[in-house]
Amino acid sequence: MSRLFKRLASTIQVKPLPSKAHLHGPLPASSFPTGYILTGIHAGVKKNPALLDLGLIVSTSDHPASAAACFTRNAFKAAPVVVSQQILTQNGGRARAVVVNSGCANAVTGRQGLEDAWAMVRETDALLPPSVSTAKNHTLVMSTGVIGQKLPITKIVDGIRSQSTSTRTLASDFSAWERAATAFMTTDTFPKLRSRAFTINGTEFRMAGMDKGAGMIHPDMGPATTSFTPLHATLLGCILTDAAVSPRSLQSALTYAVERSFNSISVDGDMSTNDTILVLANGAAVSNDGKVVEIDEETDKDGYNIFRTELTKFAVELAQLVVRDGEGATKFVTVNVKGALTYGDAHRIASRVSTSALVKTALYGEDANWGRVLAATGSVAVPYLDPTKVSVTFIPSDNTVPLPVLVNGEPETVDEVRAKEILGMEDFGICIDLGGIGKEEATYWTCDFSYEYVRINGDYRS
Amino acid sequence: MSRLFKRLASTIQVKPLPSKAHLHGPLPASSFPTGYILTGIHAGVKKNPALLDLGLIVSTSDHPASAAACFTRNAFKAAPVVVSQQILTQNGGRARAVVVNSGCANAVTGRQGLEDAWAMVRETDALLPPSVSTAKNHTLVMSTGVIGQKLPITKIVDGIRSQSTSTRTLASDFSAWERAATAFMTTDTFPKLRSRAFTINGTEFRMAGMDKGAGMIHPDMGPATTSFTPLHATLLGCILTDAAVSPRSLQSALTYAVERSFNSISVDGDMSTNDTILVLANGAAVSNDGKVVEIDEETDKDGYNIFRTELTKFAVELAQLVVRDGEGATKFVTVNVKGALTYGDAHRIASRVSTSALVKTALYGEDANWGRVLAATGSVAVPYLDPTKVSVTFIPSDNTVPLPVLVNGEPETVDEVRAKEILGMEDFGICIDLGGIGKEEATYWTCDFSYEYVRINGDYRS
Repeated sequence: MSRLFKRLASTIQVKPLPSKAHLHGPLPASSFPTGYILTGIHAGVKKNPALLDLGLIVSTSDHPASAAACFTRNAFKAAPVVVSQQILTQNGGRARAVVVNSGCANAVTGRQGLEDAWAMVRETDALLPPSVSTAKNHTLVMSTGVIGQKLPITKIVDGIRSQSTSTRTLASDFSAWERAATAFMTTDTFPKLRSRAFTINGTEFRMAGMDKGAGMIHPDMGPATTSFTPLHATLLGCILTDAAVSPRSLQSALTYAVERSFNSISVDGDMSTNDTILVLANGAAVSNDGKVVEIDEETDKDGYNIFRTELTKFAVELAQLVVRDGEGATKFVTVNVKGALTYGDAHRIASRVSTSALVKTALYGEDANWGRVLAATGSVAVPYLDPTKVSVTFIPSDNTVPLPVLVNGEPETVDEVRAKEILGMEDFGICIDLGGIGKEEATYWTCDFSYEYVRINGDYRS
Repeated sequence: MSRLFKRLASTIQVKPLPSKAHLHGPLPASSFPTGYILTGIHAGVKKNPALLDLGLIVSTSDHPASAAACFTRNAFKAAPVVVSQQILTQNGGRARAVVVNSGCANAVTGRQGLEDAWAMVRETDALLPPSVSTAKNHTLVMSTGVIGQKLPITKIVDGIRSQSTSTRTLASDFSAWERAATAFMTTDTFPKLRSRAFTINGTEFRMAGMDKGAGMIHPDMGPATTSFTPLHATLLGCILTDAAVSPRSLQSALTYAVERSFNSISVDGDMSTNDTILVLANGAAVSNDGKVVEIDEETDKDGYNIFRTELTKFAVELAQLVVRDGEGATKFVTVNVKGALTYGDAHRIASRVSTSALVKTALYGEDANWGRVLAATGSVAVPYLDPTKVSVTFIPSDNTVPLPVLVNGEPETVDEVRAKEILGMEDFGICIDLGGIGKEEATYWTCDFSYEYVRINGDYRS
């Protein structure tokens, strides 16, 4: 039993978490899309009055914005997911506002949960400026936090009523965007807010957005039209653009983007019940000739493709922030799988490697344990996988020479000093080449598994 | 950033691992099956000369024993897995010996690895007493340890040659069985050895066996006849009986038993490349009338069913020991899923819940966070899953009253004191009732995720 005693006697060395402060900073007001006002307040869902827990986002355009969303495929869908899905379907992909609360997921809350989510919609609808096309249920709703607790709905309703779109409690400056992004946060350590400019057919557009998520991160989201319904969600995101895009094309661009961004990240392999990514396109940016023409896949393939590419890049940027802020994460690792016959095969292998507890603890230990990478790869049922063709390479983030550890199924004599050097970096990559059987590839972003992860999740509710 | 500072300042409280010493103890010599001699020695694969790393098991029966096996379905199969599969197929399910080494998995070792595995077979064959039916390749081989390192084959060959089946270095007393079981160990904290007696048609038989495994435990094993081939394995087991069973029926009984035992446990969700469970049935127990008749599914359904049931119970007993000794484990949790339309659906849900990092950290934190159980349940694609029908109950191990936390999709007002009481036990159960949609159920055994798990796997190779 000396072995057991040795274990008990060992002191656990905790690496200090690197500061993530540099990942958030001010953005110029000019980088935000026009036609949106926002706020974030403390409504009282969270106990600490210094923490924001209610966010409001309103499109000020006369017409409802195009809206699209991807929701968790979890069988247990939280009330806000069910309600937002219904609204999107009823309104044919149009919406004017988003309301979000953190601190409580409003998941597994039965009929009361649905009533509460509808109350949030109704109260936010009441803030909207009157417009030609005013209709009911123009607000999409999101919640994040602990499962199985009822929303403190009176506090939330009071919070929404304390705001007004006419008296400038909602605004469009950086501070307003930052407050809204902060209201999304749960175990996040910084608000996740980014913006981006792009040009289609000579007109400049902008998109900006925020997301949140640190744990229960392994999304698998699809559009509302497929028949599923979610429950305790932890990835929430909202992207706002002043481009004009038809609802149908907005959804197809988002579905494509989400598959290659939010559906390609993992913190802990746990799919949430509330995962939701929303996008609004209000068309408030006036084109050079003053006309607003909706981008549509059928009528302007080139314009659509530019939009889809920009949306995908932006979604990747937001998704990566979640991994960087993963609970207890000290590493940001890009897993790239090449040489598959289908994108789906490459994606499944990248996902398995990215969620392997043994791979993730080795990453934390800065141990180039490629055997674990291979074991995870081989555990995915891909019939054409040939062990004698597979190569694994560690890719440093500083553009220095990559380190092959396995070439065509044969282990290399690994320079352990160099391996330590690469794995000592905060960012690095693992490339798994299946060996030219196919030409498809997929990329996943993951983090390591640390003592901090266990600590955070061993007492999350307390 | 005060939140981040708080994290950095926090001291990680490490719960001492409970001693597992009581899980191993002497067994009476009369409880072992007749006709087997064994040993375990230090051959030099492991650095520490006090640790055994080479085990030998020989059936002394005049005729080769019936043999069956289940191997990992990992695409990367270690050399010993490939070799044992070939031998079993070539010999039509007969074998006379087993050789096993720990300390090195002989996985991803290319052609040299296969040659080394064959050398272990050849050297052990040479120890076998001559018999009427002597044939080549009557030894099955297993290895466990680190991936990608070559076997120190000279040391292993010397170790095998130092033994002899005629001069009693192999023996059948408890000490010999214990040494063999000890030679299987890697990060295990105790040797896993059990025995069992059973009666078929008036004759008493015995089975005994050993297994090992503590990490990279999430087996998915099938018989050798399906076309797959494995690589870094961490679950090894060997069951020996003095019953006579036809090779075909031995395989079908083992496949059934493994599905409900070793394929229903998880420590970390990582499927290994070397997972192997072997069974030998040498027929050395003489029936009352002196005749040896092989149990066969076709000719004696009742006898076969008794054997299969006994084998399954015994496999469950051995499999549970692996979970109890899971790396860093402080809990032994039984996950039971009821009310599914198929065993496969129930098994997939039980597996997902058992591997969820969030569920496992909550178990470590003794937090009755049923929301995480539900989120994991809902992340399995089972089309008929109806959230409003699902119930979740925590089951104490002391036969006191179970604690329902969710009934027909509605959260109960949970008595947190009682919840803490149950989750404070070393053993307890989680029952997930899908709500009577079907009648099938499956049981999984899992453990928690602790700081110790991260520590052990953050520096496994060093």
